Amino acid sequence: MAAEKAVHTIVIQPGSREVGPVAHGETVLRAALEAGVDIVAPCGGSAVCGRCRIKVLAGEVDSEPTAALTREEWAQGWRLACRTRVLSDVEVEIPEASRLGECRLSDTVAVTGEALMASRRLEDLSFGGGRVAVVKLFCMELCPPCAGDNLNDLARFKKGLESQYGLTGVSVDSIWIRNMPAVLRHEDWVVTATVVNTPYGYKVINVESGRHTDKAYALALDIGTTTVWGQLLDLNAHQVIAEVSAYNQQIKYGEDVISRIVFSQGVQRREQLQQAVVDTINGVLGELVEQAGIDRTRISHIMAAGNTTMTCLLVGIDPKYLRLQPYVPPADFIPPVRAVNLGDGIQVGRHVHVYTFPTVASYVGGDIVSGIVGSGMSETEKITLYLDIGTNGEAVVGNREWLLAASCSAGPAFEGGGLRHGMRATAGAIETVRIDPLTFEPSLMTVQDRPPVGICGSGIIDCVAEMLRTGLLLQNGRLNPDVSTPRLRREGGAAEFVLVEAALSGTGQDIVINETDVDNVVRAKAAIFAGVQTLLDSVALSWNDLEQIYIAGGFGRYLRLEQAIALGLFPELPRERFFFVGNGSLLGAALGSFSIDMLKAAHQVALMMTNVELSDNSRFVDHYMAANFLPHTDMTLFPEMERTLARLSQARGGR
Amino acid sequence: MAAEKAVHTIVIQPGSREVGPVAHGETVLRAALEAGVDIVAPCGGSAVCGRCRIKVLAGEVDSEPTAALTREEWAQGWRLACRTRVLSDVEVEIPEASRLGECRLSDTVAVTGEALMASRRLEDLSFGGGRVAVVKLFCMELCPPCAGDNLNDLARFKKGLESQYGLTGVSVDSIWIRNMPAVLRHEDWVVTATVVNTPYGYKVINVESGRHTDKAYALALDIGTTTVWGQLLDLNAHQVIAEVSAYNQQIKYGEDVISRIVFSQGVQRREQLQQAVVDTINGVLGELVEQAGIDRTRISHIMAAGNTTMTCLLVGIDPKYLRLQPYVPPADFIPPVRAVNLGDGIQVGRHVHVYTFPTVASYVGGDIVSGIVGSGMSETEKITLYLDIGTNGEAVVGNREWLLAASCSAGPAFEGGGLRHGMRATAGAIETVRIDPLTFEPSLMTVQDRPPVGICGSGIIDCVAEMLRTGLLLQNGRLNPDVSTPRLRREGGAAEFVLVEAALSGTGQDIVINETDVDNVVRAKAAIFAGVQTLLDSVALSWNDLEQIYIAGGFGRYLRLEQAIALGLFPELPRERFFFVGNGSLLGAALGSFSIDMLKAAHQVALMMTNVELSDNSRFVDHYMAANFLPHTDMTLFPEMERTLARLSQARGGR
Repeated sequence: MAAEKAVHTIVIQPGSREVGPVAHGETVLRAALEAGVDIVAPCGGSAVCGRCRIKVLAGEVDSEPTAALTREEWAQGWRLACRTRVLSDVEVEIPEASRLGECRLSDTVAVTGEALMASRRLEDLSFGGGRVAVVKLFCMELCPPCAGDNLNDLARFKKGLESQYGLTGVSVDSIWIRNMPAVLRHEDWVVTATVVNTPYGYKVINVESGRHTDKAYALALDIGTTTVWGQLLDLNAHQVIAEVSAYNQQIKYGEDVISRIVFSQGVQRREQLQQAVVDTINGVLGELVEQAGIDRTRISHIMAAGNTTMTCLLVGIDPKYLRLQPYVPPADFIPPVRAVNLGDGIQVGRHVHVYTFPTVASYVGGDIVSGIVGSGMSETEKITLYLDIGTNGEAVVGNREWLLAASCSAGPAFEGGGLRHGMRATAGAIETVRIDPLTFEPSLMTVQDRPPVGICGSGIIDCVAEMLRTGLLLQNGRLNPDVSTPRLRREGGAAEFVLVEAALSGTGQDIVINETDVDNVVRAKAAIFAGVQTLLDSVALSWNDLEQIYIAGGFGRYLRLEQAIALGLFPELPRERFFFVGNGSLLGAALGSFSIDMLKAAHQVALMMTNVELSDNSRFVDHYMAANFLPHTDMTLFPEMERTLARLSQARGGR
Repeated sequence: MAAEKAVHTIVIQPGSREVGPVAHGETVLRAALEAGVDIVAPCGGSAVCGRCRIKVLAGEVDSEPTAALTREEWAQGWRLACRTRVLSDVEVEIPEASRLGECRLSDTVAVTGEALMASRRLEDLSFGGGRVAVVKLFCMELCPPCAGDNLNDLARFKKGLESQYGLTGVSVDSIWIRNMPAVLRHEDWVVTATVVNTPYGYKVINVESGRHTDKAYALALDIGTTTVWGQLLDLNAHQVIAEVSAYNQQIKYGEDVISRIVFSQGVQRREQLQQAVVDTINGVLGELVEQAGIDRTRISHIMAAGNTTMTCLLVGIDPKYLRLQPYVPPADFIPPVRAVNLGDGIQVGRHVHVYTFPTVASYVGGDIVSGIVGSGMSETEKITLYLDIGTNGEAVVGNREWLLAASCSAGPAFEGGGLRHGMRATAGAIETVRIDPLTFEPSLMTVQDRPPVGICGSGIIDCVAEMLRTGLLLQNGRLNPDVSTPRLRREGGAAEFVLVEAALSGTGQDIVINETDVDNVVRAKAAIFAGVQTLLDSVALSWNDLEQIYIAGGFGRYLRLEQAIALGLFPELPRERFFFVGNGSLLGAALGSFSIDMLKAAHQVALMMTNVELSDNSRFVDHYMAANFLPHTDMTLFPEMERTLARLSQARGGR
């Protein structure tokens, strides 16, 4: 076991193509798909369809028996790619029958969440060493009082913090003074203090008997309109030790921020909404604690990023005027709030405070500020676009000297919201889609390789882009009536494409994408594209002036850049300018917990950022209309796609 | 009415002695007694005994009819002194039968609570103008947001405070941000902010729609072990507008701090004690609000002075170690606590915080710190003794450069505690006592001229001093067996003096002072005298080096200095060195509310003050033994009293 390599190589026959590095234990299906070698897998890699047959030629694999293979076939080395895990360098054969057609862009770039910004920045912190967390534990051994030294307990405690750690001017929360006499004496004057670094000096928020500095955790939250993401942070190791997401339970009171604001105006409604998100957070927290196997009382800090409405509703602030002209937010900088005081209470220690990120405008909130800090955009000299594609879509253009933001009203399509079979990126969500250009047979990957139950954000982008490339979809967003396949059908008027047949789905029903879904996706990408263009206009820049494009959002684990470009979410710029940040605001929240400097940076970002209101901007409307096409009405921005579609048109014409 | 004088003069016949100034409406009895003209009044001025007959010779009086006078007598001008109010300059005759005997000290000085420190200092503040209160209201008219100015509500609010009042770096309590949108708009962007001046900058603790700056009140509290005193302060007018006291309901759990600390160690006991004092405060507050006719929601600040144990129990801190060697208090500086969070809550607005004074040692608490600031001792260059005679007795020696404090363990005798018929200085409490040296007939004044129901602190001092001067009491504290009067009797072994007979008392029973009571008084004054002497020893000073003596305590309205000296509470120093502060800690609490400078001064005082532990001090024990005599074993400190007692002895011998 000790000699095992962490990563391996797969040689694929015929063609001797080498794929890797592949993580130890990864399936051959996933490794191949991620490398652009498309294996037929209409069941999403859940071992249901038996279509992803491969033959293991050399090397060690771990494979599950399956009814889809005879004993003879098994003996010959045949396996299902979705159930074959790579345990060494291996050589496999993928027969023609198991492959998708070749008529596709060959240079697909997979930009994964793990690869770029996220892990890099956290490593900076863990190895940088010089960063100071917002909340820190200090253990002290105090001298017991005696006749010659009967200094009071509080002063003795403060003196210890000063002499042992150089903390001066420390204030102590009165609730901790109450039990200080007992706490100091309980383990013979060995105590651990939880100290917050505030703009007004150090503040002790907790005092415990004994030594507890070995365990220090924080909770980072991204409170999305649709999804709440939580990370449990080990403050000593500077590591994320668990990550969990859940639907925001406020959804039952409205899908988007506007409907929630409307709902909030009734009697006791704000309390209901607050309780719903607190319940969600408690659910996430419970799972995180269980996953990581830690004691929740060791959590000392909560850092929450959310849009302006979500932040208001969490803290209990009236969001009424957010949606009324002139769109005035209630507050920019909300002071930390005791977690147990929100709704029925977030289930952590009484001393824990929830820190929220400052907001910029009604629709440019703390999640964006968090993302700007988390992505490092606030530190770069390069002209950068930060794009957060969540339930809404927010764009920020600028660098460390200036920042211009806008909210694009994109809707929740890229989070899987408002679609017939849309869903979050949880188990069974289709996250990758390939479509065979001849047979229209799809190859899917689902989260956790479960039978497919719906489509998440990255799956939607993949799916629409593939449908466009394979001619299933026309540039105006209509399904192509000239294509003949049983997967394309009209149910009661609305045309739809069957991505997964009932027999292979986890729900027992067909999973489809219909024209209304496509419309939603097109409108969403058009709003984002137009928003960015309007922002760029306002500072007389063009797309090509952008030196970096940071993409954040809840697409799932992957965003295939080529697919997003094919869709027209971005123009065809040099690919090395694109960086996928993943959940930028969650990353910012984690960094804000790990480092007081990051938190201070967030305040600077909020002060520096200027909001550009798009809702009554006539240029935005023009840009939006122009982008309401696949990929765009201005094809000069999409020369590659123009050639691809021309080739496709020729091929179809010639058939 | 407009021409009415506020003060008048009384000419007393025979002898044409002029007494005054006498307040308009004051009774002749009270005016005469306060001037040292002793009228017989064994019923305490409650019109029961009919003994205080006087004849009005000239001037205007207001007199109640009484069955004690015949119609003829009334027509001749006879009245009862206790029921005759002075409405102009008057001339009265006090017949021999209505007078006490003349064999007494002639130069009795009345030092009243109203006269000296208290009112003078408050006037300083109200006319000084430059003082800034800890909590202040600011009214603003803000510009409503518009399309060109959609600054968020919080930033708009802060900008108003900065541009209109120059307050920068203001933080806002998160509970007020919650409703800020509605509050700002409710009265068209006219709002009132309640701002606290903290060591960390300005903090907004309340925001209300409309203009409210015309009404701003604070509550000053002196939380004594026995009695809780409250004053309602008008922060605009810099005036005390109501004053109320009540027994501390914690008394049911123990008479003194030690028994309360012991009680506090059981399950839920600290909560019980906290609730008891909170109930007491709510009672006091209710009466204050009713008396002043104000809206309690206009109270924005509570300043509480109390000894270390009382402060701990109010805030909910474990006082366990206060009574255990080496006597370590839990805290010196306790941060302000939200009033509604104490017990079931003090019944004020949610934003109101309770400020406590810093403590110095286990038995030198915030009440002393408050008193030092309130009395002005912390500002004087003169070597001063501050003496607080409450349930305990605390002494401080020093000036603005050094302060040495000690707690004297005097017991509650001077507050009327632990005595057979002791009581607080409330209606019916005997507060002044004169005893005829020949008949042993007493002349009493009670609080509010009600039939006597008990004896308060000043009454006790008067009574014991008078008993000593009239020979009823021997210097060793025993009742003189050689004196023959029906008022002196032995009930079941314990000798007692009947101060009020059942027929004249408000309780229907005799009011007596017995030898045990006298012992308590002697031990109390001995502890205080010895404590001061030990403090003086420690800095090589003598009583005579004291340039000022500030006396504070809950004696009631009066402390007759000569009586206190006769008792041996102080040596016979020049009388002009003595100042009666009244309730010094309540005064300090009021000043602390009126002025942030006073609050800062309190912190300086607490840091500067050094505690001298008397409990294991052998010099203290020696001094205490020497002082356990009336007035003292060392009669060189009491030359006048020595002569008086010698005269008395001669007179008795010659009879």
